[in-house]
Amino acid sequence: MRVPDLIRQKREGGELTREQINFLIEGYTRGEIPDYQVSALLMAIVWRGMTHSEIAVLTDAMLRSGQTLDLSDLPGKKVDKHSTGGVGDKTSLVLAPLAAAAGVVVPMISGRGLGHTGGTLDKLEAIPGFNVNLSVADFRRVLETCGCAMIGQTAEIAPADRKLYALRDVTGTVESPYLICASIMSKKLAEGIDGLVLDVKTGSGAFMKSEKDAAFLAELMVETGERMGKQMVALITDMDQPLGHMIGNALEVVEVVEVLKGKGPEDLRELCLELGAWMLYLGAASKTVAEGKERCAKLISSGDALKKFQKMVELQGGDPRVIDDARRLPQAQHSLQVLCAKSGYISAMQCEQIGTACVILGGGRERKEDSVDPAVGIVLHKKVGDRVAAGEPLATIHYNAEPKAVRARQLIESSVEIAAAAPAKRPLVHKVIGRQA
Amino acid sequence: MRVPDLIRQKREGGELTREQINFLIEGYTRGEIPDYQVSALLMAIVWRGMTHSEIAVLTDAMLRSGQTLDLSDLPGKKVDKHSTGGVGDKTSLVLAPLAAAAGVVVPMISGRGLGHTGGTLDKLEAIPGFNVNLSVADFRRVLETCGCAMIGQTAEIAPADRKLYALRDVTGTVESPYLICASIMSKKLAEGIDGLVLDVKTGSGAFMKSEKDAAFLAELMVETGERMGKQMVALITDMDQPLGHMIGNALEVVEVVEVLKGKGPEDLRELCLELGAWMLYLGAASKTVAEGKERCAKLISSGDALKKFQKMVELQGGDPRVIDDARRLPQAQHSLQVLCAKSGYISAMQCEQIGTACVILGGGRERKEDSVDPAVGIVLHKKVGDRVAAGEPLATIHYNAEPKAVRARQLIESSVEIAAAAPAKRPLVHKVIGRQA
Repeated sequence: MRVPDLIRQKREGGELTREQINFLIEGYTRGEIPDYQVSALLMAIVWRGMTHSEIAVLTDAMLRSGQTLDLSDLPGKKVDKHSTGGVGDKTSLVLAPLAAAAGVVVPMISGRGLGHTGGTLDKLEAIPGFNVNLSVADFRRVLETCGCAMIGQTAEIAPADRKLYALRDVTGTVESPYLICASIMSKKLAEGIDGLVLDVKTGSGAFMKSEKDAAFLAELMVETGERMGKQMVALITDMDQPLGHMIGNALEVVEVVEVLKGKGPEDLRELCLELGAWMLYLGAASKTVAEGKERCAKLISSGDALKKFQKMVELQGGDPRVIDDARRLPQAQHSLQVLCAKSGYISAMQCEQIGTACVILGGGRERKEDSVDPAVGIVLHKKVGDRVAAGEPLATIHYNAEPKAVRARQLIESSVEIAAAAPAKRPLVHKVIGRQA
Repeated sequence: MRVPDLIRQKREGGELTREQINFLIEGYTRGEIPDYQVSALLMAIVWRGMTHSEIAVLTDAMLRSGQTLDLSDLPGKKVDKHSTGGVGDKTSLVLAPLAAAAGVVVPMISGRGLGHTGGTLDKLEAIPGFNVNLSVADFRRVLETCGCAMIGQTAEIAPADRKLYALRDVTGTVESPYLICASIMSKKLAEGIDGLVLDVKTGSGAFMKSEKDAAFLAELMVETGERMGKQMVALITDMDQPLGHMIGNALEVVEVVEVLKGKGPEDLRELCLELGAWMLYLGAASKTVAEGKERCAKLISSGDALKKFQKMVELQGGDPRVIDDARRLPQAQHSLQVLCAKSGYISAMQCEQIGTACVILGGGRERKEDSVDPAVGIVLHKKVGDRVAAGEPLATIHYNAEPKAVRARQLIESSVEIAAAAPAKRPLVHKVIGRQA
């Protein structure tokens, strides 16, 4: 097998075989196939796409490039949730303890903020002491004790994906649903799960702006997971404005605790119940999705989900007192108000711009090597559809550096559109994709 | 300017600006932009193509990556000819002295055999002592003295092309008319020429099998040359069977001398007159193409073209006695006959296969590092349209290694189709492309 021939085959729109894909991924992981051949192949894949069979084989090759977890000795179904990334999306922190409280095992391996979106690991690390870098042995121990654990990707999991992702990042080959699908699925399926709930975001704050693109990616992922014997569902959910009111790592932990206490903003609570319902259903903890949703609501009102969260925080070295005293979370030194420029209804928010404002404050990374400031962020007082009066507070910026706050304010101001009439309401869940649906 | 952004721009089908292309080519030549980014960009170009303006800018950036010849102090127009490569195509060795005999200066920088096709440099080196590696100063001296000189690409000419070509070869990005055009034109325009005659081959022995693909490439090259102020013409010519009767380096020199002596096979002689006519016309050595063709015929019958050839061979260190004594050229030790399997008319020849047979004998390179055996080759006794009887000699193989001869015979036998009726005759020149035409 010669690599240039395989590149040409894909360039002409041909299908690569299992043997060919394994040869490529194994050779690349071992460093025998150079970056310059793989980047040309990646661009040919961006161009020509991949068949369901090719994606499944690629995903399998990537997950087999490293260690895979075997959690079969733990009782109960193992189910995870994955989001394609959004602004203010802190559902993972609610869902892991919520599903665990229902008896579903949630072995969650998450990522950091990417571009304008936040990352689950960055949010967890806002809790003083919380350790996301557990060894596999410690990860299992937390899972055994409380049913959920949340860590970062270890060096042993899907090394081929890490190498490919770094290459895609510098060769203009990130934005391919085929490659995105294989990347996500190879990491998730290495977790040893039985089922996976996908939250595929669409709208101005999502990577897939159009519902069509989001649905296309969702279908690829569902199909890939099912081919690999997993219970799969994908919810296309709205990211045309931030989720909840808080954006920024410590602020989002505050909002997570509110939801787990039965309070919190309606959209965030509702999405957690929807996604949680599916986790329970795929995890055989409910007979129907509707029953799963009811059960999730009860596990919140009973305080069981919150207890799970507290337990997990403790087991992973975090300070559980943040739950009752938000002031124990990192606090920004200063705050300023962004005011509404005119009266009317908020008709739209350029959601990506608000995510970028949070990155600029220091809540995310402008360059890979940047560290994150957990204390900064944005609290939105108004959301799309709300009636506002000129001069009324639109948002509060929590900041530690004045010039950054000025840039963030400009971005927030220009991200909000105010019109004479209220806009049509966008649904929270646009579509459910999967055989289970 | 960030390279991944430029790759993405081309990936989305956008046009790159002069500034962006210069940044890429200069950065790559200096080693500041890595191979893995350029190979992804090359694949995006294979996918999306380039506009005429982009190709002209790319060609210009590539030719400016190295030294360009300034021949303006030499009297007369400078005109070169370039072929996209074929089997038995030895026209360059006829045309350089032929056009020089008419007063056109021909500064020809040629290549080696590529794939199944022969290379002008390999043919010249079959002449004992002939030196294709002249310094630029010696190249000029030969040009001044006899009006034509034939050398290989020097390290100083278009280094960006050499680097890009090596990368394309291993990343499945060779077969793009846009990249082929920029590669050819950057080298040719570095020669300091006023005009260029392109011989774009089409048929079973050409890289562009279809006339449509050949014409597309020809138009790109003509347009690019004209944008850079050169007199351009492209002839789409037939390569559905080998040109002339001889294939193999020393054998082809024999046939070149025959044509220069007013003999030789009709198709080879005719194509030399057609291409020579255009060289004279673009070089202002004739008022019309028809007049140029007449003049070429006279320069052959008068012996002037042959004298020029002899002079050039002498000046470049070659043994001019080969002209009168072909036995002074390298001779293969053995020969064997390939016989016609049945009676009828030769209806087709798989021309690429015959070229490959010559490569297998040692007349070309199977791997880059192979050396070429100048003595071996094939003499065709029959061509397409000829009537043949079973058992009659079809070809003679000149060889130095028996097993290679056996493989070559199989290829030649299976390359020839014999039918009951003569096929329709294909024209030698399919089309002429250019404003001059």
